[in-house]
Amino acid sequence: MIQCPRGTRDFLPDEMEKRRFYENELRHVAKTFGFREVETPIFEDAELFILRSGPNVLKELYAFKDKGDREIALRPEMTAPAIRMFVNNMSNDPKPIKIFYFGQCFRYERPQSGRYREFFQFGAELIGSATPETDAEVISMAASMIKALGLNEYKIRIGHIGVLRQRIADIGVPTERTAEVLQKLDKKLYEEARPLLEEMGVSGTDIDGVFELTETVGGIDVLDRVPGDAGDYLRQVVGYLSAMGVNDIEIDLGVVRGLDYYTGMVFEAEAPSLGAEKQICGGGSYTLSELFGGEKVFSTGFAIGFDRILLAMEKEGKVYEPKGVDAYVLAVSEDMKLKAAEVVASLRGSGVSSDIDIMGRKMGKALKYASAIRARYAVIVGAKEMEEGSVTLRDMSTGEQKLVKVEDLASEIKR
Amino acid sequence: MIQCPRGTRDFLPDEMEKRRFYENELRHVAKTFGFREVETPIFEDAELFILRSGPNVLKELYAFKDKGDREIALRPEMTAPAIRMFVNNMSNDPKPIKIFYFGQCFRYERPQSGRYREFFQFGAELIGSATPETDAEVISMAASMIKALGLNEYKIRIGHIGVLRQRIADIGVPTERTAEVLQKLDKKLYEEARPLLEEMGVSGTDIDGVFELTETVGGIDVLDRVPGDAGDYLRQVVGYLSAMGVNDIEIDLGVVRGLDYYTGMVFEAEAPSLGAEKQICGGGSYTLSELFGGEKVFSTGFAIGFDRILLAMEKEGKVYEPKGVDAYVLAVSEDMKLKAAEVVASLRGSGVSSDIDIMGRKMGKALKYASAIRARYAVIVGAKEMEEGSVTLRDMSTGEQKLVKVEDLASEIKR
Repeated sequence: MIQCPRGTRDFLPDEMEKRRFYENELRHVAKTFGFREVETPIFEDAELFILRSGPNVLKELYAFKDKGDREIALRPEMTAPAIRMFVNNMSNDPKPIKIFYFGQCFRYERPQSGRYREFFQFGAELIGSATPETDAEVISMAASMIKALGLNEYKIRIGHIGVLRQRIADIGVPTERTAEVLQKLDKKLYEEARPLLEEMGVSGTDIDGVFELTETVGGIDVLDRVPGDAGDYLRQVVGYLSAMGVNDIEIDLGVVRGLDYYTGMVFEAEAPSLGAEKQICGGGSYTLSELFGGEKVFSTGFAIGFDRILLAMEKEGKVYEPKGVDAYVLAVSEDMKLKAAEVVASLRGSGVSSDIDIMGRKMGKALKYASAIRARYAVIVGAKEMEEGSVTLRDMSTGEQKLVKVEDLASEIKR
Repeated sequence: MIQCPRGTRDFLPDEMEKRRFYENELRHVAKTFGFREVETPIFEDAELFILRSGPNVLKELYAFKDKGDREIALRPEMTAPAIRMFVNNMSNDPKPIKIFYFGQCFRYERPQSGRYREFFQFGAELIGSATPETDAEVISMAASMIKALGLNEYKIRIGHIGVLRQRIADIGVPTERTAEVLQKLDKKLYEEARPLLEEMGVSGTDIDGVFELTETVGGIDVLDRVPGDAGDYLRQVVGYLSAMGVNDIEIDLGVVRGLDYYTGMVFEAEAPSLGAEKQICGGGSYTLSELFGGEKVFSTGFAIGFDRILLAMEKEGKVYEPKGVDAYVLAVSEDMKLKAAEVVASLRGSGVSSDIDIMGRKMGKALKYASAIRARYAVIVGAKEMEEGSVTLRDMSTGEQKLVKVEDLASEIKR
């Protein structure tokens, strides 16, 4: 029996209804923030992702040659495609540009809890602006989205990559080795970072200072300890966030995001209930367009791991109740079947979701099926009632029945 | 500059809003018919598509080996994945099962008008029932969808593959060569079908008879000329369709669908405005589950070519007007910026889609931007007005301005 490929999933009706519901919640929030949806292809030139993340990304890419011998790759994330799209098609549009997207991404890795080879991301990019208001706008939207989904336990941590970059430069790490050091710090791999820094001739005191900096974590009062322009900048971001009602944040200078293209503010959100794989959202301000052949343009963006956040909601015991059809129509006898077809068509025309018996089932079996598909009402079409232009409307939860004129049926069900 | 891969597209905000709007119209119709959405992975074992369509399909597949040396393929269609999902996960669910899906499919071919390498399909499968009502239900939904999108000129043609299969068997075509003959007839390649049939020893008269049968086209009165059980069956389908208000159909015994797994009723819809590539929808009754290791289960389904039908709507001059944000909030002066942030947050909290100046623009430039993003209102936050708890609400289409209390702002804009 053929199964779906390892690390991918089928979404059956109940699960899918839930996912679409929450996807649309995210979409709704994005729209209230003035962001507009875009879509890019499922695959891109592999080069695009190498430019963004370095050649190491190839290990995790679904990359392959197409029949025209082009190296293409299933997208592992959507920021690079979105910025490529901006460079190709939107660079002359009035700034700022606010876009969002939702879709499948692909990563070849060992599947585990909350990690799939085909996974879903919701992301947004605010392109062409580099102000504290810009960053506050983006963080505020991420926070609103997490709230809109109804997740209770989460933490938003805001940092500034500039602080760490500056310190690392100050203590003598050569520019071309900054990324290497930041990657270790991102994962809090101090044991590995120390010999690396020592090898570059950094003193023990300076190394301790860097480690201490990445452990600068706490409420917004921590900002008093953030030096220079970055400190001033973050204080402004936090001020705007507070004006927008976003107060449940932490400052964490250890947020590094492990990618070269971030330029200033960086942030992450996590759901502690998820354990080791707890990150549900990450983003920050960056420039990327110049890597893809465009002008350098400042942007701020983030992505939400949709599967991950749904898992966190599940762990909190949040339950989504799938809806059934409004009505299930059945004919009492063979000669009423065309009438039943008329009735179901008129209900559907009025926007009432309705199903109809198509297997010629007897009443008892048909009602059992109606119950299985969670129909709210059964509409029983019998010859005698139809003579008066009526049908029997049965409330599936109470079993109560009453006669209703066909022309009143839709409004009766919609009540 | 990196472009999106050949035959794929970026959907910018206006286009995307239109596509989501029509996608949701289709989704809405499917739900009123009691169908429920599912989703399957973007790629599958290549074997799945070979089982459905034969090894020839490999030519057009985006197939590749993953790092685990598994032959996988981007899905070229979604019926096979849907039925695989049914076999794996839903085979014990109460029948009939009504599912639909929407998503990207992939075909490696020369891109041309209305044909892309990444294209979008909307499809539905009604699984586990084989009655005239079943087929009528499915055709009726397809017709409702085309109508819901607002396409004016289209033709729905209904046939029955059993008629042709029977005739071909009767005149002595061996079973294992039926598919070959049907493929020629599907494309009306009579010049190629004739020598093929002659080679199998079929007489000229019989060949002419087959060709004539595939040219049996017309209104429902043509049904009188459809022999045997298939004729009776189609008459019943048409009867149910008529009861459901679907009368704009044609009978066409030349609808062949070119695939082995169809068993009875087959249908297609076309938009004449599209010229050579005019098919917008196709489907029929089939069995497929037994090929994937399940029991034999009768189903009826169809797919709508989403790109194709949107193109047809465009050719008819149908225009979708993208919506802008409800409000654009701007601060008159630097010291009002936090207040502006409060105002925008309160609007968003009330479900009013709102944007805010994040670039510190002067009034004139900010209003120009508000106009570019089609904001309905500008909300001008000034110090003097704010002392009274008010802001200036400017109607962007008329230029009219008035003072509004902040607490009344959302309801004023929603009016």
